[in-house]
Amino acid sequence: MRKPIKVEEAIRKVMEWTRTGRQETVPIKESLNRVLAKDLTATNDVPWFKRSPYDGYAIFSGSTAEANADHPVLLEVLGTIGAGYTWDEGIKPDQAVKIMTGAAIPDGADAVIMVELTKELEKDGKIYVQIKRKVEKGENIVEIGEDMKKGEILVPKGTTVNPGVMATLATFGYQDVPVMKKPKAAIIATGSELLEVDEPLEKGKIRNSNAYMLWGQVIRAGGEPVFYRLVKDDFNETYEAVKRALGEADIVMTTGGVSVGDFDYIPKVYEKLGAELLFNKVAMRPGSVTSAAVLAGKILFGLSGNPSACYVGFELFVRPYLKTMLGHRNVYLKRAQATLGEDFPKPNPFTRFVRAKLSYEAGVIHAGPVRMDKSNIVSSLIEANALIVLPGGSRGFTKGLQVDVLLLEDEEGAPEWDENITDRRLQRQRENHFS
Amino acid sequence: MRKPIKVEEAIRKVMEWTRTGRQETVPIKESLNRVLAKDLTATNDVPWFKRSPYDGYAIFSGSTAEANADHPVLLEVLGTIGAGYTWDEGIKPDQAVKIMTGAAIPDGADAVIMVELTKELEKDGKIYVQIKRKVEKGENIVEIGEDMKKGEILVPKGTTVNPGVMATLATFGYQDVPVMKKPKAAIIATGSELLEVDEPLEKGKIRNSNAYMLWGQVIRAGGEPVFYRLVKDDFNETYEAVKRALGEADIVMTTGGVSVGDFDYIPKVYEKLGAELLFNKVAMRPGSVTSAAVLAGKILFGLSGNPSACYVGFELFVRPYLKTMLGHRNVYLKRAQATLGEDFPKPNPFTRFVRAKLSYEAGVIHAGPVRMDKSNIVSSLIEANALIVLPGGSRGFTKGLQVDVLLLEDEEGAPEWDENITDRRLQRQRENHFS
Repeated sequence: MRKPIKVEEAIRKVMEWTRTGRQETVPIKESLNRVLAKDLTATNDVPWFKRSPYDGYAIFSGSTAEANADHPVLLEVLGTIGAGYTWDEGIKPDQAVKIMTGAAIPDGADAVIMVELTKELEKDGKIYVQIKRKVEKGENIVEIGEDMKKGEILVPKGTTVNPGVMATLATFGYQDVPVMKKPKAAIIATGSELLEVDEPLEKGKIRNSNAYMLWGQVIRAGGEPVFYRLVKDDFNETYEAVKRALGEADIVMTTGGVSVGDFDYIPKVYEKLGAELLFNKVAMRPGSVTSAAVLAGKILFGLSGNPSACYVGFELFVRPYLKTMLGHRNVYLKRAQATLGEDFPKPNPFTRFVRAKLSYEAGVIHAGPVRMDKSNIVSSLIEANALIVLPGGSRGFTKGLQVDVLLLEDEEGAPEWDENITDRRLQRQRENHFS
Repeated sequence: MRKPIKVEEAIRKVMEWTRTGRQETVPIKESLNRVLAKDLTATNDVPWFKRSPYDGYAIFSGSTAEANADHPVLLEVLGTIGAGYTWDEGIKPDQAVKIMTGAAIPDGADAVIMVELTKELEKDGKIYVQIKRKVEKGENIVEIGEDMKKGEILVPKGTTVNPGVMATLATFGYQDVPVMKKPKAAIIATGSELLEVDEPLEKGKIRNSNAYMLWGQVIRAGGEPVFYRLVKDDFNETYEAVKRALGEADIVMTTGGVSVGDFDYIPKVYEKLGAELLFNKVAMRPGSVTSAAVLAGKILFGLSGNPSACYVGFELFVRPYLKTMLGHRNVYLKRAQATLGEDFPKPNPFTRFVRAKLSYEAGVIHAGPVRMDKSNIVSSLIEANALIVLPGGSRGFTKGLQVDVLLLEDEEGAPEWDENITDRRLQRQRENHFS
């Protein structure tokens, strides 16, 4: 007889064995969606020279002190500075230089007047700009370091690179980007009933779908999946595969073989390996037979052979482990609150994780379960973008309740796993309902 | 003088020139996040043989007609069928076969009794199972096609492959997956002030960040970015680069050179190419100078050289174009409603798109602007996961208003662009406020 432990406790046991992964550098073009291994700091002030935010004329402000509509001043225009060019000889008080957005302010100038407020004139073969107002010192000048200061931490390590981070990396010359190495996650599907994806069907057999599902889940979590050959329900074959994977990968996942059937060899494999069992039963549906063990600091996840249970087991236990290796700060699935779209009248002593699709309406999130929630139906996973959390207990759940949902496609994550929040929220709603 | 057109109209003009992209097949392992080019149909019934959903005994139900706690029946156990195996000789009414979850029901059996409800006995060297209740015909038998029917469309074309879709592909033997080819999007950054990411700083110059930002945005939208060398503010150089890119890529994006400055050559390049101008001014901030043109059915996007304007221009105009080529149904950014986290007291005649970070609280979405909203600050793009939409008009916006936000990291998208929704919603709130 196995004793179920709470989901929360199972997660805690897994997370006790996390470790930080290794680092590597990748070219900036390959950095999208990777996790920064070091803080990204400004390698120079931005701007690192005074520049003009507009097209206009760089001038000495003092020369406009007396200017007004009736008495405009005329300043000689020495030339034009395009963005990327400089005017190295500087200007004198009665001179100006036409300047383009982004160009460096020449020596002697302390202000820029926008081109729209001026007029150019020609006189005696020289070009002049006519200014009809007083310009303040510093007007339209972006000061050195105004946007960013050298040494400032712009993006903390543990951040996933998005297009904005890429732009920042480029700005500061990060041709090579220090990122966390993707943890290698071994996938071993067990079960004599399994066929490879390219094999023809045989009576009694089904194609291996869990391994491909996990392949996608590992990539989505930021890891590098590694396939191992399908393993029959055979003790030695299973043992050898797990042993080999332990030597090659950072974590080892098996699917199937964790129940109490005659051909469920994973518990015996853990035993022969001398692995320390963390748990072999979790108070959850689906996936109550999910197991985990540790050998020499390396973790083994025994996921269910049932697709939905396997899916949920990965998201709850494997994902935060991988994310921690990757140096993420928010390793758990983000929790949001949503309105339950259907009754769940039957109580269940175990916490349920119902595959659901969220919809947004007027700033409020609704959660509808996806198709039938039979755990053997792969197709319910197609549309799911969330898991509804229904805490175990002696009562069912009615449509319209505010329930917690775990967001599956969110990139941000959450720093903690807090099952109790859900319990308290539901408790409060039920009290209000009857008071 | 350029005449600004509404964002909505600019999008419509761009979308008139969309076309569907090409198809290719990729191995299932490379299919994650790709877009299905064909409907994914069930290639066989699931299950395609009757199977047992539990560990138990396959029996003929009629043989338990008289069974009860006082008068149990004993059926001879002929053997065990592990998952993946079959029992080809069938059973007779007084016989049973032990059966594992997922295994095929043998001929002669029409029900399964769960192992927990039985007991095994040995008598005269034979094994018997003791059954103390009547078992109904069909009990615990998963019928052929119960989960999925052959020919059923499981995932429509245009769907992005997620781990659940991968599992479904594997189930039905899709070793090679028909997906949409990633559209090639050329990126040409123009500006004499630009340095490559690995070049040392020079006075008056800045490193090219837009191209790397677009690189990330193109990948995020499902396209394949193609870099072209930096182009100086020089008419011929710009013209040649754009012309070459038109011959090689599916769409061409330039950054910079679209203003009305002395060195803004993009309008002249469009002219010399003989491209039809779609627009060269949009009533939006940032990015009012965003331009678009068409040549021989191929589209050219003239994005601003200002990072924020470039970013917004891509998301509003280029993204839906690329997504349409990819066969997506929901090509626009998903709109949600969120509570405005800050006052925007200054009215603006143009629609503003403010880079923001969303937070969720008790089922309600809050939108806070990210850092300063200066359009020249790259760092404001790091944390942005949404754009707040503030429609143009003669009034400012107060904290607490329900505003529309466009979700930047959402995978689902929206089928339509509807600016008017925002206007009507704001109108309603303001009326309520003063009534």
